[in-house]
Amino acid sequence: MAQCDIGLVGLAVMGQNLVLNMESRGYRVAVFNRTTSKVDDFLADEAAGKNIDGFHSLKELVASLKSPRQVMLMVKAGPAVDALIDELKGLLDPGDIIIDGGNTYFPDTNRRTKEVEEAGLLFVGTGVSGGEEGALKGPSIMPGGSEAAWPHVKELFQKISAKVGPNADIPCCEWVGPAGAGHYVKMVHNGIEYGDMQLICEAYFILKNALGLTNDELHDVFKEWNLGELESYLIEITRDIFTVKDPETGGYLVDQIMDTARQKGTGKWMSQHALDLGVPTTLITEAVYARALSALKDARVRASKVLSGPDAKYTGDRDKFIEDVRQALFASKICSYAQGYVQLDAAADEFGWKLDNGNIALLWRGGCIIRATFLGDIKAAFDKNPDLENLLLDDFFADAVQKAQPSWRHVVGTAVELGLPVPGFAAALTYFDGYRLARLPANLLQAQRDYFGAHTYQRLDKEGTFHTDWIRERTL
Amino acid sequence: MAQCDIGLVGLAVMGQNLVLNMESRGYRVAVFNRTTSKVDDFLADEAAGKNIDGFHSLKELVASLKSPRQVMLMVKAGPAVDALIDELKGLLDPGDIIIDGGNTYFPDTNRRTKEVEEAGLLFVGTGVSGGEEGALKGPSIMPGGSEAAWPHVKELFQKISAKVGPNADIPCCEWVGPAGAGHYVKMVHNGIEYGDMQLICEAYFILKNALGLTNDELHDVFKEWNLGELESYLIEITRDIFTVKDPETGGYLVDQIMDTARQKGTGKWMSQHALDLGVPTTLITEAVYARALSALKDARVRASKVLSGPDAKYTGDRDKFIEDVRQALFASKICSYAQGYVQLDAAADEFGWKLDNGNIALLWRGGCIIRATFLGDIKAAFDKNPDLENLLLDDFFADAVQKAQPSWRHVVGTAVELGLPVPGFAAALTYFDGYRLARLPANLLQAQRDYFGAHTYQRLDKEGTFHTDWIRERTL
Repeated sequence: MAQCDIGLVGLAVMGQNLVLNMESRGYRVAVFNRTTSKVDDFLADEAAGKNIDGFHSLKELVASLKSPRQVMLMVKAGPAVDALIDELKGLLDPGDIIIDGGNTYFPDTNRRTKEVEEAGLLFVGTGVSGGEEGALKGPSIMPGGSEAAWPHVKELFQKISAKVGPNADIPCCEWVGPAGAGHYVKMVHNGIEYGDMQLICEAYFILKNALGLTNDELHDVFKEWNLGELESYLIEITRDIFTVKDPETGGYLVDQIMDTARQKGTGKWMSQHALDLGVPTTLITEAVYARALSALKDARVRASKVLSGPDAKYTGDRDKFIEDVRQALFASKICSYAQGYVQLDAAADEFGWKLDNGNIALLWRGGCIIRATFLGDIKAAFDKNPDLENLLLDDFFADAVQKAQPSWRHVVGTAVELGLPVPGFAAALTYFDGYRLARLPANLLQAQRDYFGAHTYQRLDKEGTFHTDWIRERTL
Repeated sequence: MAQCDIGLVGLAVMGQNLVLNMESRGYRVAVFNRTTSKVDDFLADEAAGKNIDGFHSLKELVASLKSPRQVMLMVKAGPAVDALIDELKGLLDPGDIIIDGGNTYFPDTNRRTKEVEEAGLLFVGTGVSGGEEGALKGPSIMPGGSEAAWPHVKELFQKISAKVGPNADIPCCEWVGPAGAGHYVKMVHNGIEYGDMQLICEAYFILKNALGLTNDELHDVFKEWNLGELESYLIEITRDIFTVKDPETGGYLVDQIMDTARQKGTGKWMSQHALDLGVPTTLITEAVYARALSALKDARVRASKVLSGPDAKYTGDRDKFIEDVRQALFASKICSYAQGYVQLDAAADEFGWKLDNGNIALLWRGGCIIRATFLGDIKAAFDKNPDLENLLLDDFFADAVQKAQPSWRHVVGTAVELGLPVPGFAAALTYFDGYRLARLPANLLQAQRDYFGAHTYQRLDKEGTFHTDWIRERTL
């Protein structure tokens, strides 16, 4: 009876596809779903004739598993996960493994790892990225939690994951770290995805409005960009999007889509935690805010009738400016990833995790939304220097940004002049300029705080904290 | 025995000064402090000969109060407040009032209002702004909580508050709203303070580095600015700061102060809640991040040895550019307050509060750090239209920003060209440009999300949500 390699709970599309992926790699999978008709439907349809066993209770599913048992939850993040864990605690034996593959907020995974371990079981909280297609064909998998679980789940997870490298044999799945580290890395992945998408949107908006490029021309530009250092899944699908026609109007579909971006919360979580950690993840936060502003469509339509801006096109060389925009996008993207890794380092410090930044780049190299050649460059940078404190200090990225600077400044300056909003490009550039300056104007800010609140300040020339009675000392 | 008008718990400087302020307005004040030697010291020193009664226990303090009793807590925000509330529940009678005047995180005040009301008592959570000096001479007071408490505390609170208006008789204290509304408004005040300070720092940095102004010249510039529409406490103290000499070096003190800004958390709270609400409070968040980046001084010093930027001064007309910077500062400040009020409206919706935005401007008109003539203009805007959805749509502010636009764009463009970080100015401008555009590039973002995750999209020309199989439909 105990013949299944793994059990999976939750047969929504992601869960179903992961099961099919596992089965296709030679594993026998037990499945259960709270609404049991889903089990029957799945067995009768997609899973028919396959090494997949369906059950109508968690207890039967558990009884079907080889020891140590592995039960993967693919259910809605939140209370449902806690309820299942509680139930599984009564069914599993010491050393058995519960795996949460949902889009879980990392503090929950921190807590659950502890609770499950206290019950004598092992817990894995893992990010799974790549959408429905990735789940079926090979996602990026970012597991963390009880390290003792890793030897047991490693083979299956690596087999079902995306593969990269010249021989397509490097799995996009490695152990990330303790407790919520896996879900944290998934959250950072998603935040970076927000940033990448915002930057592409800004490039699109500038090319369309400053140069007046048509969708055909935009297709050509993104096609060319995808052949160079920007090569990535998101540039590739952007290239494709500009070719899709709208059957209803005969025009291009992209022009008929409402400009109101939605979001599911991971970019927000990342920004909120950056604020807790005190690290400047400015670009991703601006990307989250840009989605929020886009969603205020009615308010913007009303504002557009009251407030006006410049109404001009770019008058310089067209092809040169397109290349400027590409450079601006690349430099901004480097800053975004630099900020993301600084946040990862800070989180690792905060929680006492030891993260391998190069391996994390490798996890994102394939299978997920931000997959890109670029991540190989990041892996190389951390291979050269595992303690690299900021990607911008790596030779490759420092050179790229230095080279891009004139274009980057020209594009941001032009957008500002023409009234085209570039919160992402601008956040990246102001971060870059702040980061590379040994001296910022915060000396004045400290003087202000000491003036009105006696908050004290530090000096450049000696240790200690100091307070001045500014009102008494002021002259003039 | 029951002769005191109010009891105050917590005799740190803010608490002591509030007591002295109350006593100076004719109130008899009972005081208690956990470390009772503080009570004795205070009575022997600052409170000597005054209508102030000291007690060594909370019970004695309560016994000294007229009914309905009012006990104000001026202790460190957090568990100490809960502990005191628990103790007071056992000592007070129905209808008595507990007031928390600390720098409390608003969700705690939401919770405590409920808990205290359930115990038959009334609760007031109030922001008190103005630092030590304000507490003594007249702070800005932002009370919220149990509305039934307001008639009892109103007279005292308004008497001790700052006064504004031509006859200095309008108190900077009005009832804000239910539950945590008072502490929420205080949090927004502090966030706006972060924004104002960041904008002043950016103006300073540009004037110093692009034009090479000396501290004497900076003093003159801020002195002049303080005579116009930028008139405010923060501009005033900035003007003064540039005059203060350093006795140690003989130079100017501001130049010896370390450029590492610290923070106490309210700007962070406001940003995190803006993200929860989905409103774009971009400038204040960039101000919080700018403090975080400034604090990474050692990292910046290391980066400054690897990364370089432009090295040029501004070559145009000096006086005209100073005026451009003033306009950029004013326009950015308008955007910051616009964002703050949008967040207030969203929070009011979220919590079911009815807030009077004009009155809130009046609360900030005096006594607090952001006090400024400007707040009278905001009051006027909400008087004209209490439902004003964004300050930028008010005639006065719309005109100001429209007039400032060329200067604003020129200053941001120049800073970008010269490599001077202006995250605040840029965040304001990109927000303005995003807000005033009916069409943003989020249509592409929605196409991307639908492409890789089947997240669906909306159309411009009809209701509903739609999904496209982009891979099948793409051409070329």
